[in-house]
Amino acid sequence: MATIVYFSAQTTTRLCLKSHLKGLARSCESSFLSANRGPPPSLLPGLTWLSRGAGVRFMSHGTAGRLSSGRTRRGALALSGAAALTAAAAVAGFLANGNHFQRAEMATRVSRAEEKKEQEAEITERCRGFMSPPMTDISVLQSRKEEMRTKMELLIMETQAEFCKALEEVDGGTFKVDRWERKEGGGGISCVMQDGKVFEKAGVNVSVVFGYLTEEAAKQMRSRGKVLKGKDGKLPFSAMGVSSVIHPKNPHIPTVHFNYRYFEIEEEDGSKQWWFGGGTDLTPVYVDKEDAFHFHNTLKEACDKHHPRYYPDFKKWCDRYFFVRHRGETRGIGGIFFDDLDSPGQEEAFNFVKSCARTVVPCYLPIVRKHLNDSFTDEEKDWQQVRRGRYVEFNLVYDRGVKFGLATPGSRIESILMSLPLTARWEYMHEPAKGTREAEMLEVLRNPKEWV
Amino acid sequence: MATIVYFSAQTTTRLCLKSHLKGLARSCESSFLSANRGPPPSLLPGLTWLSRGAGVRFMSHGTAGRLSSGRTRRGALALSGAAALTAAAAVAGFLANGNHFQRAEMATRVSRAEEKKEQEAEITERCRGFMSPPMTDISVLQSRKEEMRTKMELLIMETQAEFCKALEEVDGGTFKVDRWERKEGGGGISCVMQDGKVFEKAGVNVSVVFGYLTEEAAKQMRSRGKVLKGKDGKLPFSAMGVSSVIHPKNPHIPTVHFNYRYFEIEEEDGSKQWWFGGGTDLTPVYVDKEDAFHFHNTLKEACDKHHPRYYPDFKKWCDRYFFVRHRGETRGIGGIFFDDLDSPGQEEAFNFVKSCARTVVPCYLPIVRKHLNDSFTDEEKDWQQVRRGRYVEFNLVYDRGVKFGLATPGSRIESILMSLPLTARWEYMHEPAKGTREAEMLEVLRNPKEWV
Repeated sequence: MATIVYFSAQTTTRLCLKSHLKGLARSCESSFLSANRGPPPSLLPGLTWLSRGAGVRFMSHGTAGRLSSGRTRRGALALSGAAALTAAAAVAGFLANGNHFQRAEMATRVSRAEEKKEQEAEITERCRGFMSPPMTDISVLQSRKEEMRTKMELLIMETQAEFCKALEEVDGGTFKVDRWERKEGGGGISCVMQDGKVFEKAGVNVSVVFGYLTEEAAKQMRSRGKVLKGKDGKLPFSAMGVSSVIHPKNPHIPTVHFNYRYFEIEEEDGSKQWWFGGGTDLTPVYVDKEDAFHFHNTLKEACDKHHPRYYPDFKKWCDRYFFVRHRGETRGIGGIFFDDLDSPGQEEAFNFVKSCARTVVPCYLPIVRKHLNDSFTDEEKDWQQVRRGRYVEFNLVYDRGVKFGLATPGSRIESILMSLPLTARWEYMHEPAKGTREAEMLEVLRNPKEWV
Repeated sequence: MATIVYFSAQTTTRLCLKSHLKGLARSCESSFLSANRGPPPSLLPGLTWLSRGAGVRFMSHGTAGRLSSGRTRRGALALSGAAALTAAAAVAGFLANGNHFQRAEMATRVSRAEEKKEQEAEITERCRGFMSPPMTDISVLQSRKEEMRTKMELLIMETQAEFCKALEEVDGGTFKVDRWERKEGGGGISCVMQDGKVFEKAGVNVSVVFGYLTEEAAKQMRSRGKVLKGKDGKLPFSAMGVSSVIHPKNPHIPTVHFNYRYFEIEEEDGSKQWWFGGGTDLTPVYVDKEDAFHFHNTLKEACDKHHPRYYPDFKKWCDRYFFVRHRGETRGIGGIFFDDLDSPGQEEAFNFVKSCARTVVPCYLPIVRKHLNDSFTDEEKDWQQVRRGRYVEFNLVYDRGVKFGLATPGSRIESILMSLPLTARWEYMHEPAKGTREAEMLEVLRNPKEWV
């Protein structure tokens, strides 16, 4: 078997940023309907989340330093924004020829116009690399460039494009792109590659939906069910996300799943509740410790840049969430999973989600390449098919996003169920013999391990 | 394609009764955990069920004649029982030699002893044909021969054996028989034939479980959620059933499912609530009107012997229950489905269930034989696999028995999930071309038809 070419998360982030700036990045999709949501964080041992009462909520221990560093980061971002504006005004100052105030005013006007033009050009340029134009009109995105929903929509579109491009490159096939609209508001872009050379079924979804929620529905959307007050009981909401499940043909290449999402709900008094959720997890058919280390370590590096508790806590949350209870097994070897993240600040939380989204390709693609030419037996293929059956069991029986989607009238079933494998198998009383690689896999699923 | 050899339901019932009496009948199994339960009958148009308040509950129209005929039938059964006892006593009278009272007493004693011996011999004889000894000790069954739970346990064991035997005969393979116990009380017998010549996966389950239910659980077990009072909130219950799902290899042979079950719950005052549920339904991959007519007509004939509303009402209930809501399709072409049946009397309801259980083989086997040697293409096999995927969706997302089973700690997962096919397929955006036989099948699933 070939060895993994390790990219450090940092290198990758830089590479992604570069391609992002060049408008070369393309991205990948998720229906918010298939957003996976987990147990309340209070279920995590040794970790308590403060209540939302104070407006700011975060872990109750070991976070003081992080909180302040988070705040510093936010401050720095604000500063750099001001600095950019000043610089533009300065450049404009050379061109103008009035008194100090006139010059300044003119410079500001010119700089604003140029900035707007630049911004327009930048968004248009970024969108060029997407699998399909964003769900929201580019002019609307430009008009609210600073808003989180704009930033998130561009991020999920980029993630979709970047991931699809990477998979197309390794497979040689092409994604089928379906654009769909939701009658109640918004829509999505589903990219599917089926029966490719490497991938049995690869689905990458983006969805951007909005409308009104009832107070009850809004309560159910949050892990910890906070009561929200809406005008006449109705709350305007906005939800978007990118999600993906990749089922390869070769049983030595694991299945990967990721989902990153953002929610916004407006309360009666006009204040906005927002939060992020997401995660990336791996489902191999056989244990490969090197793969597991690479996958988890790449995630850990991305997490550690934002908070030292993120990786350990979100790793545990992942193991708990992707648990096929009736089998007593986790779905795979995990990764990270989080929900209801609304701290330390919106910008910081977004930056964390961005790091995670940009870690998808470096987490997974080296593993795909490593096993691309691994030979396999019929028995190994059968075991893969049995594991695919368990994947179906999790997705149809437990996945909160799938359940929510199937129960929601008007949702796009094909996008929700594209996470199901092309083929699966259920053998009665299947139990691998002791000492086999199949038994080794089961052992790991029954007793989740620390990989890093 | 060969033609079906039609057995009339009546002929079959007689044949079954004969084999039953000879102890030749063998039967087929169902976990009560995978018991499928449907919508309240009040959902059925044109049919109202009376409330349980009066103790007797039945359809509110067109039933007067049936009710009385039901009562007559019960009376006749009671009479024939008394007649048998008198006859035995009369025979004994010839052997005894005392005065009138002495002779009568002795005759009664002798006849009772002989009767007991006969009964013991009969139960032992009947059990000989089963796939495994009944869950309840034969001595216990003998000691409570007249109780419904004994009659029902023998019926489900016989149904399991009869069906397994018929399938083995047509396949040439052998069922694997697993006997399992439930820690909390009772257990079951799972018969599975996998990867046979004709059948991809054939599962026939029997389960006989007992123990205590909470009032809340007891309420949920009934379609119409009647509040039951238990001692200290606990209700002794007994539940048993036979259920089966058969997935053939050839796409021209349909999948069949059936389930017949009986529940008993004892209230605080010692009174017993009991009810039956069940049904048989067919899931073809292609429409074959002749098969559909044979299947439905055989069921109709069995139903019509008991009540003229049974077939039409339970046919509708079946179409409503086996509905994959998120696809807007029924699972198959239906059959019959009923639940919560506790009228007109226990004996009558049991006789109806017995007729249904004995109709399984004549409903299905002629269809299997007819298509045994049908040739098929890869495309037809693929379409079968796509339909299998929908079967999995129904079973994991909607089936109340499966959901109940998966959520119940200590239930036997392998028996609950043996209803899943060996293999299934999910193709993104699969939509058959107009005018094809696949499109014809979909049309029928989207708009359930009357077949008889």
